[in-house]
Parts: sequence; C-alpha cells; structure tokens
Amino acid sequence: MPLLFNIAATGAEGGRRAELALPHGAVRTPVFMPVGTAATVKAVEQGVLETLGQPTAERPSGRGAEIILANTYHLYLRPGHELIRRMGGVHRFMSWDRPMLTDSGGFQVFSLAGLRKISPEGVEFRSHLDGSKHFFSPEHSMEVQIALGADVMMVFDECVETPASWERTRDSMALTHAWAERSKRYWVEHREEVPWADEVRRGRGEAARGADATDATDATASDDADDAGVASVQPRVRAAGEPARFAGRHQALFGIVQGGMYADLRRESALRLVDLDLPGYAIGGLAVGEPREVTREMIARTLEYLPRDKPRYVMGVGYPDQIEEYARMGVDMMDCVLPTRAGRHGLAFVRADPTDRRSAVLRLNVKKLENAEDQRPLDEGCGCMVCRRYTRAYLRHLVASGEPLGATLNSIHNLAFYMETMERVRGDLAPETRG
Amino acid sequence: MPLLFNIAATGAEGGRRAELALPHGAVRTPVFMPVGTAATVKAVEQGVLETLGQPTAERPSGRGAEIILANTYHLYLRPGHELIRRMGGVHRFMSWDRPMLTDSGGFQVFSLAGLRKISPEGVEFRSHLDGSKHFFSPEHSMEVQIALGADVMMVFDECVETPASWERTRDSMALTHAWAERSKRYWVEHREEVPWADEVRRGRGEAARGADATDATDATASDDADDAGVASVQPRVRAAGEPARFAGRHQALFGIVQGGMYADLRRESALRLVDLDLPGYAIGGLAVGEPREVTREMIARTLEYLPRDKPRYVMGVGYPDQIEEYARMGVDMMDCVLPTRAGRHGLAFVRADPTDRRSAVLRLNVKKLENAEDQRPLDEGCGCMVCRRYTRAYLRHLVASGEPLGATLNSIHNLAFYMETMERVRGDLAPETRG
Repeated sequence: MPLLFNIAATGAEGGRRAELALPHGAVRTPVFMPVGTAATVKAVEQGVLETLGQPTAERPSGRGAEIILANTYHLYLRPGHELIRRMGGVHRFMSWDRPMLTDSGGFQVFSLAGLRKISPEGVEFRSHLDGSKHFFSPEHSMEVQIALGADVMMVFDECVETPASWERTRDSMALTHAWAERSKRYWVEHREEVPWADEVRRGRGEAARGADATDATDATASDDADDAGVASVQPRVRAAGEPARFAGRHQALFGIVQGGMYADLRRESALRLVDLDLPGYAIGGLAVGEPREVTREMIARTLEYLPRDKPRYVMGVGYPDQIEEYARMGVDMMDCVLPTRAGRHGLAFVRADPTDRRSAVLRLNVKKLENAEDQRPLDEGCGCMVCRRYTRAYLRHLVASGEPLGATLNSIHNLAFYMETMERVRGDLAPETRG
Repeated sequence: MPLLFNIAATGAEGGRRAELALPHGAVRTPVFMPVGTAATVKAVEQGVLETLGQPTAERPSGRGAEIILANTYHLYLRPGHELIRRMGGVHRFMSWDRPMLTDSGGFQVFSLAGLRKISPEGVEFRSHLDGSKHFFSPEHSMEVQIALGADVMMVFDECVETPASWERTRDSMALTHAWAERSKRYWVEHREEVPWADEVRRGRGEAARGADATDATDATASDDADDAGVASVQPRVRAAGEPARFAGRHQALFGIVQGGMYADLRRESALRLVDLDLPGYAIGGLAVGEPREVTREMIARTLEYLPRDKPRYVMGVGYPDQIEEYARMGVDMMDCVLPTRAGRHGLAFVRADPTDRRSAVLRLNVKKLENAEDQRPLDEGCGCMVCRRYTRAYLRHLVASGEPLGATLNSIHNLAFYMETMERVRGDLAPETRG
C-alpha cells in the first residue's frame, strides 16, 4: 500500500503543492506541524488547535492544524507507550482526530549527553526525569511508535554532534543506515499492531462485526465497552454497512537522511535510504547550531536525491522565513517548537508591514514597556483569534504579570502566523481549488 | 437611579430568583462570579469564559459566566488604574463585554500583615511586588475603582483579623462605617468619571455626536480614533439614532457589612449601612478560617437586616455545597478563587453519583494513580467542554507532567461545575422563562 501523495503543482524553485492522504485525514502540503511534545501542544487546547488560523468569508474560524507532532521519547517515559496503547493510541488519548506524526526518540536520546551509551545494538540512556535506565534499539523505537499509533512514524537514527569530522559523521551515518533497515523490517512485520488495528481487522471482511454494532441501541457505547470495559469520552461511531475507517490502512514509516554538514555524505545517505523504498523521507541533523546558509545548502543538496513523488520532511526547522524558503525549495513538511516556545517567552512573530504579508518577519518582545498602552493587536494584518480580540497592551500586562493566559495567547498567534505563512506559499504554488 | 433588581420568585428558605440589570448586561441570580484577579480568570481565555457550562438542545455551548470579578489591589499595582482608564476601563482592556465587579482592595491590603499601617484616614501599605509604599483611603479606593470601571464597585472597608475580641471588632466596624460614608460621598460626586462616561455624555442629548459617527465611512474606526488616536481591537459600534449604550448609566456601589463573628455587631453594621441607601449590600469578613456553622450563622443573622429588594452578596465563598446553601438562604451573589485555584492544583469537583446532580460533591485528585487509565470524563453527568472531550487518564497525564493545559482544563470544568450548581438552584426557585 503506497502512501497517497498527490502533487497538484510544482513551482519554479521546486516547491510542490500536494495533498498527503493519511489514515486520520488529508494534509495539504507544504505544511507546518505544531509540536505536541507530551501529547499536548503546550498551553493550547485541542479545540483551539482545530480552529487556528485565518478565517475566511466561508469559515468564521481558521482551518486549524491539519497534522501535529508528538515526541516518542517523552511519551515513552511518561505516561508510557503501553498505557497509551491501552487507551487506544495517542489520538484517542489526547482527543485529536486529525493526522499525527511521532519522531523516533533518537534526537532526544542523543541530546542526553553524558547520560547515554551508543552501541551497534542501540542506545542505553538514563531518563531526564528520574535517572532510571532504559534501552532504545531500532526495534524498540518501532514498537513504541506503533503503540502510540501516529499516522507517520520515523526510523530510529543516530544524530551526530556538531561540529563532527567527516570520518565521525560517516561512521554515524553507517549506523543510521543499518538502523533504518532494522526499523523497516520491524515496521513491515508489526505495523498491523497499531492500536486502531481492531478497526483495520473489522474492515477486512468482518461484516458480522458491523452488524453487531448496529443491533445495539447505543452502538457507540457498546462498541467501546467491548474494548475498554467502560464508557469512553470519544467513542468511534460507525454506521451499519459503512466501511471501517481504517480499513486497509496502517502507519507510514519515513526514513531520515543524515550526513552532517557534508554534501557527499548527504548524497550517499539519501541514495542508501531511497533504496529502502520507504513511504517518505526526512532530512535530519540540521538546525543544530550551524549557520543558516549551511542548513539551506544541505537541504538543497539532499533534495536532489530524494524521490519527487514522495513527501519530504525537514525536521526541527525553523523561523517563519526559513520554513517559507524551504517550502519553496520543495520541502513538504516541517515542524518546530519555536512558535510555542517563543510564545511562552513573550515573543510574537509579526510582519514588519502588517498590510504586506510578504514583508519581513519581526519578533515582537511583548513585555517591552512600549507596548504597555498600545491598543493595536500583535499584528494588524493577522486575523487569528488573538489579533481579532486582544490588544498589545493587554498581552503585555499578561506577560509582565506572569499570567498563564499570556503564554497561551502568544502561542496561538504564533502558530496562526506559521500557518498563514504556509497557506500563502501553497497559494503561490497553485490556487486553492476547494474551500 | 436605583439599581434594577427584579425578583421573579422567592423560595421557602428565602432564596430569590432574580435578574440584576447592570450597564454591561443582565445577570441572572443567584450567581457565582469567577475571579479574574489580574483582569484574567487564571488560565481561562475570555472566549471560553463566554461559553462555559452545560449545553442545551438550543445552545451547543454553555451560557458562560454572566459576571466576573477583578481585584482592585492587584490592578492598581499592575498595570495601574490610570493605565486601565486610558485603555477605556477594565472591560475594554481585557476584552470582556459582560458585567464585572471590583472589590475595594481592602481585603488584600489587610492581608498584608506587617506591611501595612491603619489610621482613621486610611491604610499605608507596601506592595507585595516590589516593597514600594502606597496609601489607600476610601476616596482613593473609589477613584481607582471608577478608573477600572466595573459595573459594581465596593466600599472601602476594614477587615478585622480572626479571632478578634468583641471590642476590637466593634472598633474596626466603626471605622468601616465611617469609610462607607466617605466611599459613598466620593462615588456620588465622581461616578460620572467612569471610562465609559464619554458614551454616557453622548447619550444625553448629543444627537450631533451620533450623526458624526454615521457620516464616516467606517463609523467604528473613526469613533475609536477619537478616543485613543489609533485603531482599536474592540471598537464600540453605535448606529445612527441608536441611544448610547451607557446612556444614563453609571457604576453601582455596594456596602459591606462587617462585625466579625458577633451577631449583635452584624445586626448593627447592617442597619447602619442600610441607612446609607446603597444599591446593594455585601457581607464581608467571612470564610477567614472560622467553622462552617459560624459562617452560615453569621450570614443568616445578617440577611435578616438587609433590604429584600436589593442584591445581597457574600464575598469570598465557598465550596459548591456552600454556595448552594447560601443561595437557597437568600444570597444573590458569591465569588471565590476556589474553582480555579483547585483546578490549578489538580483538583476537580464532581458529583458522588454523576447521574444525581443533587448528590454529594467530591473533590477528585486528578493526579492520583487510580486515574491513570480511567477512560471516563471527570464527571460523567457534566456536559462541559472538558467532560465532553477529555478522559481522566489524559487529564491525569497532563497534571502529572506539569503541562499548562491540565490547569486550564481543570479550571474550566470546575467553573462549569459551579455554574451548573447555580443554574440548578435558580431552576428550583422558579422555572426558566427564557432560552
């Protein structure tokens, strides 16, 4: 079952407007994915996430985030992947019914300098929470990610430190490639074990199961009672005769190209991974402290070797102008904690000229005294719920007073700003065809 | 101008179902008022506050809070009442267009033990934020509250410590009465200075002003530009010929009955304050550590002497069963930080038997391990947005992980629980007549 990735148009610089069909829905790309580290996009409620962004004449609120990311390392440690599997997977656990992606845990584990030990078998590490000892192998990362049940999961890779020598980077890359093969093998064998697999199985000709549900007065409750023994908050409803939602679907596994800051290694890594014929490809190990020009160069040199008919994802970037630039170069997916982290620190992204949405991006320090009596919204050209309702003066007061609402509102605006940026890039690549 | 307080029905125990008409709208009583200390109900966005509560067949979301409270002491110190006046008052500052009430600052100031000095003139105190020296007199409290511009403001009173002797309590009460007279005098002389006074003035025969607004292409923007010199986020719109929203309206001042835990002093205090013929009356100095039976007794013994045709407000109470009990006794308004504070500490109010909304109130410790895999909502009989969407398991994870969303969701549920309680009491006193 190949991943459905329908490219509608390709721009002069290589950027593509496309639609990525995932088990939990369609994602319009290029897309920016908000990061929900611990199964929550920090300080932003799921209902708000679903309506983020710019309203239109047809829609009184924004489209919302079409895909979000969760971190395997964090969820593995707390509350634990087996618990989330028993709760029906991360979608049901957090009540998010749209697509999701999980990273492999590799990046977080490798960031635990001094707390981890790498071998060809995998990585032994200590929890940053309580110092307890754990071991991640490619197989274990896959097992954890299958339990979480995101629509897209990532191979377990090694991230080399920066700067690193060519030799060190090459050796690390070799480990990444070996681990990618092991990740793929495990995924192929176990991908039917995703928590929504019961619906997958039901969809495969088990007509009787569908009839059962119809017989019950409250099909929904009985359906869930079968699974968990108690009434659930978010029941899955399926009408008689309707095919199971996830019939024939399973998680997609993306490879991760490494190779540090060496174009020849990036090329080699891309070619090796493409041989594995995975549903999508990410470019990892960037935005780790290197100059911006190098990040851009590595992306450009890697994109050349990635298949044009599959989604391409650059992990952990970036500033609004960067995500715009990379999207125009042909990157389809990106994620970054920046909009929410900056929001919590009282920083808001705005356009230098609010009436020109292509003007430079500024970072507004909301707490500054100059905002204390400013009756304007954060960004006069932004239509997000924060800019429609609240003044800089009020937001400045919230941030200066340490009120939690300040972090929430700044984060919402920043996420809306990122989404507006991607919306505009998509519009430039090809006009919108549906509302 | 007497305050409009229309009593629709009175229950056997003295409870009244009524409607309180305030400049920013009508409030159905008995009512619980969420506390927005620093012009924000902690961790809850205003749009959520407006839709809090139980949905009905006609309404997909709750009615929301009809009135909230803000603290004069906190807003005086940060961001400052003059700033808020320049921003158009606390309603516009925080974008809350429904009724509001401010306390006098007295309670907070008297809580600064060791940091304040009382004289017949007023109270000298040091800021808990930076140690800076300040002075509050009844006149100054009124000036600050008029600048904030809430619909209801409170006289400046002295709150005696608990326990206190009869003599000490009597002397403190005498000060409170003298200050109430001074508060009233200042209010009568200055109440037209409320930040929405421009609209008050416009409404008094200034027909030309209305015509001006109509001439402008964008009446809204031009209206606001007159006031602040910049475009505002929340313009006040008024069509040609339409009377100014606040025509003939100003803030209402409520007296505060003191007298500690002595019924004779409570009686004396009530009678003295009733002589001042204020628009409403509060009972202060309760829920400061005394046993519950004493609180109840003092309320009962004070209510006897308060006018039946005016709203009665008990400050700073209480648990859900207490607010229900007091409402049935004839208390019309109450406020408390408990639902939001408990929410931030991971405590949720639920019914012992979710199917019986009159069953006992339990405090659920969300963080407890027993909730870790509980797929039920906090309260299966609650229809609030949190209980409709999220499981105890997820909330437990958020609280255990210190995620800000946990505080937000628990606070929203607790506020909805309080509102549901008052909704039920109102229904018991007289059936609902409007949707």
